[in-house]
Amino acid sequence: MIQNITDLSRKLRTGKLRSRDLVEESFAAIDAAAEKGSKAFLSTYKDAARVQADWVDRGRQAGIKLPPHAGIPIAIKDLFDVQGEVTRAGSRVLDENAPADQDADIVRNLRRAGFVIVGKNNMTEFAYSGLGVNAHFGTPENPCDTEMPRVPGGSSSGAAVAVNQEMVPAAIGTDTGGSCRIPAAFCGTVGFKPTSTRVSKRGAVPLSRTLDCVGPFTTSVSCAAVLDSILSDGHGDDVESFPEGGIRLGVLEGYVTEKMDEVVARAYQDALTRLSHRGVRLTPLDIPQLSRLPEINSKGGFVGADAYAWHKNLLETRAEFYDPWVRDRFGAGKSQTAADYIEVGQERTHMQALVDEKQEQFDALVLPTVQIVPPTLDELQDQDHSNAVNLLCLRNTAVGNFLDVPAISIPCHASGSLPVGLMLFGARGHDRKLLSVARGLEQVIRGR
Amino acid sequence: MIQNITDLSRKLRTGKLRSRDLVEESFAAIDAAAEKGSKAFLSTYKDAARVQADWVDRGRQAGIKLPPHAGIPIAIKDLFDVQGEVTRAGSRVLDENAPADQDADIVRNLRRAGFVIVGKNNMTEFAYSGLGVNAHFGTPENPCDTEMPRVPGGSSSGAAVAVNQEMVPAAIGTDTGGSCRIPAAFCGTVGFKPTSTRVSKRGAVPLSRTLDCVGPFTTSVSCAAVLDSILSDGHGDDVESFPEGGIRLGVLEGYVTEKMDEVVARAYQDALTRLSHRGVRLTPLDIPQLSRLPEINSKGGFVGADAYAWHKNLLETRAEFYDPWVRDRFGAGKSQTAADYIEVGQERTHMQALVDEKQEQFDALVLPTVQIVPPTLDELQDQDHSNAVNLLCLRNTAVGNFLDVPAISIPCHASGSLPVGLMLFGARGHDRKLLSVARGLEQVIRGR
Repeated sequence: MIQNITDLSRKLRTGKLRSRDLVEESFAAIDAAAEKGSKAFLSTYKDAARVQADWVDRGRQAGIKLPPHAGIPIAIKDLFDVQGEVTRAGSRVLDENAPADQDADIVRNLRRAGFVIVGKNNMTEFAYSGLGVNAHFGTPENPCDTEMPRVPGGSSSGAAVAVNQEMVPAAIGTDTGGSCRIPAAFCGTVGFKPTSTRVSKRGAVPLSRTLDCVGPFTTSVSCAAVLDSILSDGHGDDVESFPEGGIRLGVLEGYVTEKMDEVVARAYQDALTRLSHRGVRLTPLDIPQLSRLPEINSKGGFVGADAYAWHKNLLETRAEFYDPWVRDRFGAGKSQTAADYIEVGQERTHMQALVDEKQEQFDALVLPTVQIVPPTLDELQDQDHSNAVNLLCLRNTAVGNFLDVPAISIPCHASGSLPVGLMLFGARGHDRKLLSVARGLEQVIRGR
Repeated sequence: MIQNITDLSRKLRTGKLRSRDLVEESFAAIDAAAEKGSKAFLSTYKDAARVQADWVDRGRQAGIKLPPHAGIPIAIKDLFDVQGEVTRAGSRVLDENAPADQDADIVRNLRRAGFVIVGKNNMTEFAYSGLGVNAHFGTPENPCDTEMPRVPGGSSSGAAVAVNQEMVPAAIGTDTGGSCRIPAAFCGTVGFKPTSTRVSKRGAVPLSRTLDCVGPFTTSVSCAAVLDSILSDGHGDDVESFPEGGIRLGVLEGYVTEKMDEVVARAYQDALTRLSHRGVRLTPLDIPQLSRLPEINSKGGFVGADAYAWHKNLLETRAEFYDPWVRDRFGAGKSQTAADYIEVGQERTHMQALVDEKQEQFDALVLPTVQIVPPTLDELQDQDHSNAVNLLCLRNTAVGNFLDVPAISIPCHASGSLPVGLMLFGARGHDRKLLSVARGLEQVIRGR
């Protein structure tokens, strides 16, 4: 399957490709992977997708002017409402819920743009945790290491696996602390988290209404820009490539680089060297206040309180259906006081003002998406170690959520080695500029 | 043809109606009117519309989830770009232009929502003048008086006639000084002008880039709200009806009521009486500064300078193709100095601040859309009289453009008498609230 949705769009529009063929390729890849034990998808819409694909093909043949991406297969995270279906959110807790009475806003937007939704991707229960483990439906294995089983990253685990394995050219996830960018970094795809207000969250099961964002997994920055446009009510326009020469990047140091393992440190440093050789102006930037984040969030932060507020009743009535590890963590939010919560908000405002000012002279900030390579399933057997690794996985990406800046993860590893993601932060609300800068730098970051 | 697009949407979705039947009804009405000399349409897309309608019907029958308004016929003003066509704007001046290389943004939005564009409506040349006269393609007669030929109002003349005559359930026009609302008032339809930045104007031939707005002609406020949503990138949601009891209206007096003819004065006063009886709180509001508008615009205002800036080269190279009356008026913009233009902008800012403050205590302001009934073609034979009548037609609506507030015209005349429009102004940028208030009051205004 051609993995670039701009290419797919062109080939569909010029009659070189039929949507039906694309959809069949997608299901063939999904089925083949499922037979080998992949758990990337929790459900598929085979009949509906085929009917829609044929209909789109007939429309194009008849010369009807369709939206440019009509007929392209796409997958959505299991937490988005599809009218008439019970939304699971990777859990068994909601099984008794009524079916959704309408599509989530982003599902409406994808349908309006003519995308063919082929299925729903696996995720960690209620989007909690950055590793990608799911106690109910199984954990999709990371496809990038065939020798040693590793996690795919979470929470949008299946989305990243599905894009990496060419089951779909793109998938839509959510990101509360890194759930789009961690799986993207771990599975070698592009993952984008917009400013939180940019894309409607109506019809998505929330983890934290304060921090949740909706974003795409794609094979290129251009594809991410196209989907960002469609998700935020546009027509799927790409961004211009920001001219590479003279781009000014602030290279974050300290809190976000001090735990790097060797593989990540080397790939990341090599990428910075390539950027520097191409005339990109790199300026080291230490913001020591970032190291206060664990302390600021020590009483649970936004996620602890927001998740407890949403799950409160379910924790009483459906307790036995939760993964106990998730249940305990959601339950811990009960002890957070309103004053604690308000204080996190105040700390956030201060931190945003501080970083806004430091960020002004740069086109973007750069940092490793995750400081370690994907952990092996083996090492996560020990629960204490697993908890520590989970926090480390979320460490850098969560900075972007706390600041509410747009953020994108781009693969920067050498072909054949374990995936490593390089992350760019833009200015809050300037999502299109970040995508433009990322597009300008993408080939250098990837070492192509 | 059922004229309410919400009803049409429901019937299409439940299989009670086919798009193809609707499209055939539309063309039958257009053709029948054309045979009787109607000049409401300048072109139609019969083949393409039929192919699209059949395709939409097949999609619905196959159970594909289409946008809610897919399959509804609609018309667009002659000044919107359609890819592959030379855009005329009701003129012969642009005949040698290259075909448009893409659809206007609002055309993209209509197509994405699944509307079937059946044709382009007549308009006054380059959207100039409020009467609806066109020297090149003929003037569509006002269908509301079969005994005495009257103008339909301009500049979106054909749009209002087409909706009144049930050729289409809705049509899209533009409004620079009243071009959506005057024809709506004269032809007994609803006409809505949004805040100028709400709907993209890309791909529309401009009259004044400062003042131009894109808005719909419909048979009800609900239909206008649905189209406002689609034109401004939404999914076609209606607004809630603002609870009627206790709505506070500022009733504008002075400049906007002092020239009312008897028919308008009676219909307008009767509507206010009905509103008052239903508990709507009416407070007289005289803003004497509005009477300065003719003086502020005495050097041509935004329209004079903006139109000249756009037509400058054409006035030299294609002078002989203009209606001389239009050409002379565009040419007059040449004498406006930059300082004059800047001064109009400053006056506007002051007037907006003044009205903003007076408007705060009201949910909307109310005034007659036009102070006179549609003039007869006979009385317009005299050019001086015609010029004066044109200015009077534009007098009230142009206040809304100068203030850049959302404005809607709703029919308020008794059945069987000449059409009269009642206009509501909202607060700048609060278009949805204005539509909600208008929906709450619509039946009372119409005297139903």
